Amino acid sequence: MQIRSAQARDRADIWRILEPVIRAGETYALPRDMSEDGALAYWLGDDRKTFVAEEDGVVLGTYYLRANQMGGGAHVANCGYVTAAEATGRGIARRMCTHSLQQARELDFRAMQFNCVVSTNAGAVRLWQAMGFETVGRLPGAFAHPVHGFVDAFVMFRAL
Amino acid sequence: MQIRSAQARDRADIWRILEPVIRAGETYALPRDMSEDGALAYWLGDDRKTFVAEEDGVVLGTYYLRANQMGGGAHVANCGYVTAAEATGRGIARRMCTHSLQQARELDFRAMQFNCVVSTNAGAVRLWQAMGFETVGRLPGAFAHPVHGFVDAFVMFRAL
Repeated sequence: MQIRSAQARDRADIWRILEPVIRAGETYALPRDMSEDGALAYWLGDDRKTFVAEEDGVVLGTYYLRANQMGGGAHVANCGYVTAAEATGRGIARRMCTHSLQQARELDFRAMQFNCVVSTNAGAVRLWQAMGFETVGRLPGAFAHPVHGFVDAFVMFRAL
Repeated sequence: MQIRSAQARDRADIWRILEPVIRAGETYALPRDMSEDGALAYWLGDDRKTFVAEEDGVVLGTYYLRANQMGGGAHVANCGYVTAAEATGRGIARRMCTHSLQQARELDFRAMQFNCVVSTNAGAVRLWQAMGFETVGRLPGAFAHPVHGFVDAFVMFRAL
């Protein structure tokens, strides 16, 4: 598996991966009815670098890396990762996260922060902890989960 | 003093208030070299409502109110407040915050969150605490202060 910069030709693959996650609305704070154009404009925005994880020519995951804030907060990175539905459980998110930490270091970020890790997304919380992230904040009821209602979200952080 | 929606004619006043705060770079995560057009595009963006506090025809403060996240996070509001340099210490930030909490309620937000309250901005931290905000997270070294170096930032939150 290789992880490389996303290209224009990856747009359909990225949307294939993002769409079910956006439509489910259980893990990312993105509108469930977000259009393909809107989602790709967000995921491939000028303010971020976007990567894909590819194996034998098949895109199995994608992530973005950006500054979490401007100005005095621009040394803290932020990422979002999505694995293709058919490829979960194979460690792809972990590999994308490892790649993103290295990329962030090369870009001179000093830390990485996730702003809204949904507390019911236990697999993600466990993985980020295993990747060295600490839960530095709990946002009470900050995520409207389509099944569980208002659930807490975590702010997770690690130095680089 | 009245607080009202910002109009196009307020642009010069808003910039007069924002510019010294942006140039100082001590309290807001905005680029210190941000242009007037860039700052006004941000402060008056389509994704937010912007207000001014006015007394005898003089604009003394401004704030914005927006959703802090999209999708499952869109029920949490976020605000930024700036008081004119010549009008600090008169309770204008407090009145803008009170106004914003009421506005947020009317817009059916369920909570308000500040993402990056600079720890050295003690007056702001005290005021938000007095306004019912709790410090729900501490981001270590997340703000590059031009005088104090890397300082912590707080995530502050209150239900509405």
